[in-house]
Amino acid sequence: MKLASLKSGRDGQLVVVSRDLSRAVAVGDIAQTLQQAMDSWSDTEPALTARYEALNNGIVDGAFDFDPAACDAPLPRAYHWADGSAYVTHVELVRKARGAELPASFWTDPLIYMGASDAFIGAHDDIEVESEDWGIDFEAEIVVITDDVAAGTKPDLAAKHIKLIGLVNDISLRNLIPAELGKQFGFYQSKPWTSFTPVLVTPDELGDAWDGRKLHLPLRASLNGTLVGAPNAGVDMTFDFPTLITHCAKSRSLMAGTVIGSGTVSNVGSVDGSCCLAEVRCLETIADGKPSTPFMSFGDRVEIDMLDANGNTIFGKIDQTVVQYQPPT
Amino acid sequence: MKLASLKSGRDGQLVVVSRDLSRAVAVGDIAQTLQQAMDSWSDTEPALTARYEALNNGIVDGAFDFDPAACDAPLPRAYHWADGSAYVTHVELVRKARGAELPASFWTDPLIYMGASDAFIGAHDDIEVESEDWGIDFEAEIVVITDDVAAGTKPDLAAKHIKLIGLVNDISLRNLIPAELGKQFGFYQSKPWTSFTPVLVTPDELGDAWDGRKLHLPLRASLNGTLVGAPNAGVDMTFDFPTLITHCAKSRSLMAGTVIGSGTVSNVGSVDGSCCLAEVRCLETIADGKPSTPFMSFGDRVEIDMLDANGNTIFGKIDQTVVQYQPPT
Repeated sequence: MKLASLKSGRDGQLVVVSRDLSRAVAVGDIAQTLQQAMDSWSDTEPALTARYEALNNGIVDGAFDFDPAACDAPLPRAYHWADGSAYVTHVELVRKARGAELPASFWTDPLIYMGASDAFIGAHDDIEVESEDWGIDFEAEIVVITDDVAAGTKPDLAAKHIKLIGLVNDISLRNLIPAELGKQFGFYQSKPWTSFTPVLVTPDELGDAWDGRKLHLPLRASLNGTLVGAPNAGVDMTFDFPTLITHCAKSRSLMAGTVIGSGTVSNVGSVDGSCCLAEVRCLETIADGKPSTPFMSFGDRVEIDMLDANGNTIFGKIDQTVVQYQPPT
Repeated sequence: MKLASLKSGRDGQLVVVSRDLSRAVAVGDIAQTLQQAMDSWSDTEPALTARYEALNNGIVDGAFDFDPAACDAPLPRAYHWADGSAYVTHVELVRKARGAELPASFWTDPLIYMGASDAFIGAHDDIEVESEDWGIDFEAEIVVITDDVAAGTKPDLAAKHIKLIGLVNDISLRNLIPAELGKQFGFYQSKPWTSFTPVLVTPDELGDAWDGRKLHLPLRASLNGTLVGAPNAGVDMTFDFPTLITHCAKSRSLMAGTVIGSGTVSNVGSVDGSCCLAEVRCLETIADGKPSTPFMSFGDRVEIDMLDANGNTIFGKIDQTVVQYQPPT
C-alpha cells in the first residue's frame, strides 16, 4: 500500500495512492489523517489496503490524478522524530577528514539525535533558509514509521512495529553544527527542516528489497540535475532499523507515528558516490587537503529518489529548491 | 485562565479549571483537546476565557469537582519539546563538581536540547523505570507553551507568543547521561518521561510574579515529604523565555503547542536548596569530595509545586512515585 497526505490544514488529507503513483483516492471514511490511521493501525490498515487494491484495479469511485507537488509530508507534523547515524562508515569518514579517531564504541552503541518533528515539509516544498553562510546541505536517508512501541522492546519484537517506509531529506546547516556539537546537547538550529517523499509504503511493496531490517536498494541523490551518489542502503548499515527502535525505546515508550531515520546512507569507500555534500567535501579534504565542492546556494535544486528493479520510482521524488527566507521584523 | 486535560484517549479531554482548582467544566463545544485550542488560539482563547469566568462565578452548567489525579499532561502528546539550561549557575556547579571549567560562551549562547514530546505523563502518574542503576532523578522546571512562531522571530516579538505557563518534572537518568553527552548528540535514553502540573495557566493568572519574560516565585521540590529546595525561578535565570524561544526559532518555525522549558531552576550558592538531586550531590562533592545523597529508589515520592502570595497552589502539584517497570519479553 502507498499513502500520501495532500496539503490541507495542519495535518493534511490522507489519500491512498496507486502502485504506479498515477492515481489517488480520499479515505476520509477510514481516517482523515495519517496520524489518525497510525493511532489505530490494526483497524485502519485492512480497510486502507482494501481501498488500495480497488484503486489499483480501477474499481474505486472518486479516484483522481495524483500530483506529488500537492503533497505535504505524509505526517505533516509528528510527535517523535529520531534520526540515527546508522552508517558508521560515514561518521568515520567525517572524523578522518578532521584528523580525529572514531571511538570504538561507535560501532556498537548507536548515535541517535532527536529531530524537529514539527518542522516536516512536503516533497516539492521550497527549502527556506535565511543565510547561505549557514552551510546548506541535504542528507538522503531511509525512514520507517512505527506504531506504539512499549519501553524495553527488543529488536525481534521491534521489527514487527515497522509499518511504513519512506525517504527523507534531513536538511542540515553544516556551519552551525560544530558549535552545537561542542555543547554536547545535540543538533538544534543546525537541523531545521525535514522533507519527505510524496508517499510512504508498507513493507510488502518493497518485495525482496526489504528484509524486515534493512532496505537493499540504491538511494539516489542529485544536485542541479547531476547525480551526487547512489549508495546501496542495504550495504554498510551498521545498525538496522529494529536495533535503532530498541535503542530509542530503552527507557520510554514510542508513540504511534514515530519516525526513525537511518542517517545519511553511505557505503565504505563511497564507490557509488555520496548522499550529502558534507561527505563529498570530506573525501576532497582527505585527498586534497581541502574541500572544493561548495554547500548549496539559493536556487540550487536537490532531488532524492529510489527506483525499483524496473526503474520505476517507489516513493515518488523529493524535488526541492533552496530559497532565501526573510524573517519577521 | 486555568486549563487541564482529563485522561481520555491519546489527547485527553480539555477542561477549564476554576482559579482555586476546586471545580472544572468541559469545553468540547470550543475545543476537544488543548492541541485543538492551541491550533486556533486567537479564536478559542476568548471563548475559553468566558467559560472560565462563568465557572469562577458559579454560573456555568455541568461543572464538577476537579480531581488532579484524573489529569493527563495538559498536552498528553505534543509536536515539540525544547528544554533549555537557562540557569547557567546550575551548569557551572555541575562542571565545578567534576573539576571542569565552564566555557565562557555558555553565558551568552543558550544550551537547549530536544526532548521527548511523545512521552508526557500526568501529575500523579507513576514514574516507570526499569532499573535503579540508571540513577533516577527529578528536575523541577518552569515551562511555557507557545502558539505558532515564525522562523527568525526576535525576543520582543517572541514574548507575545507565550500563551500558557506551567511546571514540569524533567525525569532524568543520571547514570546514562555521561555516555550520551560524550557522543555529542544530546540526551536520548537519559531523558525518558516528562510530567506536568495538573493545570497550565495564562500569564495574567500570575499577576506581578510574571514580568513577560520570567516567573518570580519559588519553585518547591520535595522528596518523600522533605523539602529539597525552593529557589526563586526569577533569580539567576541567565536566558529568559523570549530569548529561549528566539534561539529555538533561529532556523525554522515552531508549531503551536511547542513546550519550552527553563531547565532545572537554580540560584547562585543554592541558598534555598536545589530542584534536583544531581545539584545536591554536586554541592556534597565540592564540600566533601563525594556525594552522600543517593538518587531515587523504587517507592520514592517526588512533589513539585509553586504557591502564590497567599500560599495557595497555582498549578496544582506534581506528586509522583517511582515504580519498577517490566519490559515486554
